[in-house]
Amino acid sequence: MGRIIIGVMGPGTGASRKEMDAAYELGRQIAQQGWVTLSGGRACGVMDAVCRGAKSADGLTLGILPTENKSDASLSLDIAIPTGLGSARNNINALASDAIVACGMGAGTASEIALALKVQKTVILLNSTPEAQAFFSSLDVERVEIASTVNEAIEQIKRILSR
Amino acid sequence: MGRIIIGVMGPGTGASRKEMDAAYELGRQIAQQGWVTLSGGRACGVMDAVCRGAKSADGLTLGILPTENKSDASLSLDIAIPTGLGSARNNINALASDAIVACGMGAGTASEIALALKVQKTVILLNSTPEAQAFFSSLDVERVEIASTVNEAIEQIKRILSR
Amino acid sequence: MGRIIIGVMGPGTGASRKEMDAAYELGRQIAQQGWVTLSGGRACGVMDAVCRGAKSADGLTLGILPTENKSDASLSLDIAIPTGLGSARNNINALASDAIVACGMGAGTASEIALALKVQKTVILLNSTPEAQAFFSSLDVERVEIASTVNEAIEQIKRILSR
Amino acid sequence: MGRIIIGVMGPGTGASRKEMDAAYELGRQIAQQGWVTLSGGRACGVMDAVCRGAKSADGLTLGILPTENKSDASLSLDIAIPTGLGSARNNINALASDAIVACGMGAGTASEIALALKVQKTVILLNSTPEAQAFFSSLDVERVEIASTVNEAIEQIKRILSR
Repeated sequence: MGRIIIGVMGPGTGASRKEMDAAYELGRQIAQQGWVTLSGGRACGVMDAVCRGAKSADGLTLGILPTENKSDASLSLDIAIPTGLGSARNNINALASDAIVACGMGAGTASEIALALKVQKTVILLNSTPEAQAFFSSLDVERVEIASTVNEAIEQIKRILSR
Repeated sequence: MGRIIIGVMGPGTGASRKEMDAAYELGRQIAQQGWVTLSGGRACGVMDAVCRGAKSADGLTLGILPTENKSDASLSLDIAIPTGLGSARNNINALASDAIVACGMGAGTASEIALALKVQKTVILLNSTPEAQAFFSSLDVERVEIASTVNEAIEQIKRILSR
Repeated sequence: MGRIIIGVMGPGTGASRKEMDAAYELGRQIAQQGWVTLSGGRACGVMDAVCRGAKSADGLTLGILPTENKSDASLSLDIAIPTGLGSARNNINALASDAIVACGMGAGTASEIALALKVQKTVILLNSTPEAQAFFSSLDVERVEIASTVNEAIEQIKRILSR
Repeated sequence: MGRIIIGVMGPGTGASRKEMDAAYELGRQIAQQGWVTLSGGRACGVMDAVCRGAKSADGLTLGILPTENKSDASLSLDIAIPTGLGSARNNINALASDAIVACGMGAGTASEIALALKVQKTVILLNSTPEAQAFFSSLDVERVEIASTVNEAIEQIKRILSR
């Protein structure tokens, strides 16, 4: 029936140390649950950190790349999918994920949250800004969840998957 | 060298009367300036209203449809482009517009604003919510402009185009 | 109800003199019929020639670009749509055209013909190779038409549009 | 560095018994080599058969779906990626595969071969028609290989990967 896929979105080159640490731990715990980790796949920021975390716990990592080839893929990806779509690939990240965690914020991440809400998927905002929490909750209060720790996010994913 | 294209984004079926009235007037004034009006192209909400407004002033209207055919296109479109991409077409709306106005808010519109900011295009928020203004300004304060009237939005577009 | 759009596909940098001459004349006659000319939009080969021909007869030209911006757009485009999709934009060329003419052949053009046949659109092969005629006819004999002159292609388009 | 991905393309509902048998055996042997099987992912024809074959040898199966959700995914997929792109997803199939085998022919398959040749990837035509062999060889004789058995195709893939 296909494995469960958890999408983790977040900044690339502009990611903070704290965001990357959270992404690493999130990837590790996603892998421990037996879920596949999906990300934007590039070798930087949250995308790279979540893949490294997932591999530290022998998880399977899947990256949906904006580029036409694998040259800028994270070295911790098992499966690199170059799409050649640029940011239009953000919609695939939203559609392919059974649950979505935004770890940090930026324009690309914001588009992925919005595209996920558009198809009525629940999004977990981890360590997000007050402005992001207020805005996305105003778009769809029932499908936006707030998490302040990785453990909390994992519990929220379990609830989303059990619906 | 190609005509100037102004993208107007906004809710479809959920658009309010006020949003549709603003979109109609915006389309009319865009046409008066000699600019092409680009929208999501469907026969509802802000997309339809901005096309009707543009046609009322003999403007050229262009719609980037999410569907594979033209069956749900606005009757006020001159050029209907079915993309078959679903919401991935939102990135085309961002890339193809020389300036972008968000008229109202929703998940699809939010994704278009974020995708436009991602490629460093300026976005004008017309009659937007405080939450949207605060969030998008937090993403990129230099590229988010606030307008409270259509006239103000037109003046902002002129400044964006003159840069 | 939207204007009629005729898609003209063909090689870019590798186009022959004969293919470009045919594309120019095709664009000119498409414009004379009052139809919009759609192409891949780049400033080379068949894409550029068909736009120049259409403009010589005051036609409207529309280009669906593979790139994220307009920097490599034909100077004869009225409306340049950067998609950022690379060759995935070839499917838009197929979907957005009411009739499609392949003027010359290459891998990109072959994909556009195949994608058009996939959605059951008729394709006209102008000055095509025997191998291309035999192959595409084997895929869908009812929807592949052969033309050896531009005049013949225009007559075939008229028949397709009248169905 | 990412696992090796072999794309297998072919007809969906119109696939013949012979094509599906070849696809099953191809999937089985791809899995035995330790490669990931990529297909269009739907629950019919060559896409489904190659996934079933790969699973019979404990391979990993990846499907790039045209739809927005997983409802029509093959039950033999490990990883289902709904793209919502329709046939524009065919370009992802071409870009994401380290080597590509066309098993049977149709308009969708033809587009995938052409898109692969466009980015200079080698394509193996297995049990293909004389018309397809002649046409694609005329497009790029160096990157089109002909196979008449699954064993032969596997040997060709090994040579492609060793370049």
